[in-house]
Amino acid sequence: MAAPKKRSGRRAGPTSSRQLILDASRSLFSAGGFEGTTMRAIAHASGVDAALIHHFFVSKEALFTLAMRDAFSVIDLVPSVVDGSPERTGERLARAFISYWERPDVQPGLVGLLRSATTFEGAATAIRDFLGAEVLRPVTTTLGHGQSQLRASLVGSQLLGLAVMRYLIRSEPIATLRPEQVVFCVADVCQHYLVERL
Amino acid sequence: MAAPKKRSGRRAGPTSSRQLILDASRSLFSAGGFEGTTMRAIAHASGVDAALIHHFFVSKEALFTLAMRDAFSVIDLVPSVVDGSPERTGERLARAFISYWERPDVQPGLVGLLRSATTFEGAATAIRDFLGAEVLRPVTTTLGHGQSQLRASLVGSQLLGLAVMRYLIRSEPIATLRPEQVVFCVADVCQHYLVERL
Repeated sequence: MAAPKKRSGRRAGPTSSRQLILDASRSLFSAGGFEGTTMRAIAHASGVDAALIHHFFVSKEALFTLAMRDAFSVIDLVPSVVDGSPERTGERLARAFISYWERPDVQPGLVGLLRSATTFEGAATAIRDFLGAEVLRPVTTTLGHGQSQLRASLVGSQLLGLAVMRYLIRSEPIATLRPEQVVFCVADVCQHYLVERL
Repeated sequence: MAAPKKRSGRRAGPTSSRQLILDASRSLFSAGGFEGTTMRAIAHASGVDAALIHHFFVSKEALFTLAMRDAFSVIDLVPSVVDGSPERTGERLARAFISYWERPDVQPGLVGLLRSATTFEGAATAIRDFLGAEVLRPVTTTLGHGQSQLRASLVGSQLLGLAVMRYLIRSEPIATLRPEQVVFCVADVCQHYLVERL
């Protein structure tokens, strides 16, 4: 058996303090959005001094960007959408998108991002990237049906609206459909925007 | 010629003060959203005492609801969508929705509503109503293709996502397309949700 760790009585070192701050701010930003989260609350939740947060991250904007980055930069939809029968491309995109949002480790970060998009330009940029250049544009470019930017933008508008209604304002019946029902509801529309003549 | 109005030197009466407050708050809520607008700023912009605002409207929530009500309660889409050739139903809905958002007297109020939906439940409820029971549900019910609530919800998710991308986060290319181009981009999708088998 491993020996129990000793509590040294020393303060956490800079690396772990930095991580504590990031973890606390990710959770607070997710719940309250950019505007609704104060540096003082982050300091309190992470058990460090507010001055230390400023020392590490300079500004609330920079901290938000770092804390939220993981939520929207890890997804590569290209293989899961492009591989497979061409007539089910839209269904695969809808499923990949919804599966990603349903992940308990991902959803709070994405909701926090949506919540903040109205008050913090950095969050709006992140959503534009998430829906555009970073995630959907590579899909439409790889599919090769032309007008890749417009296609990414249109399918992004459908998926964004779906996410807002299901996860943010929780509008019925979309909010309580099973994930696979949501996928089938929007699969044809995704197929249209990705593949068919616009 | 009408005689120029005399300035009486008296303070504005209760009715006009009330209207001044509503006008100022509509404009401030539209720009800054619910969370970003203080009662003090509204008092300053309308030139009245903050206590008078509380006297008239009791709370910021109640004031927001009253100030924004006009922006989303006046639209009746049923005649403009239902009348006409059945295969262009979706196009008519898209045109009616976009035309409404493009109106200079309407757009700021709707943007303010979107901005506030993340921080104020009253705004989220207003959007749910705008997209559901109040505006889209009567359309799908009148069209009579069944599943009227699900159809309203799905077409609402597309239109909401479009509005967020075009008017709120201003994502390209949707933000700068001409209104009629936007209509044609989403017409088939609206047609699908309104009329076709889901």
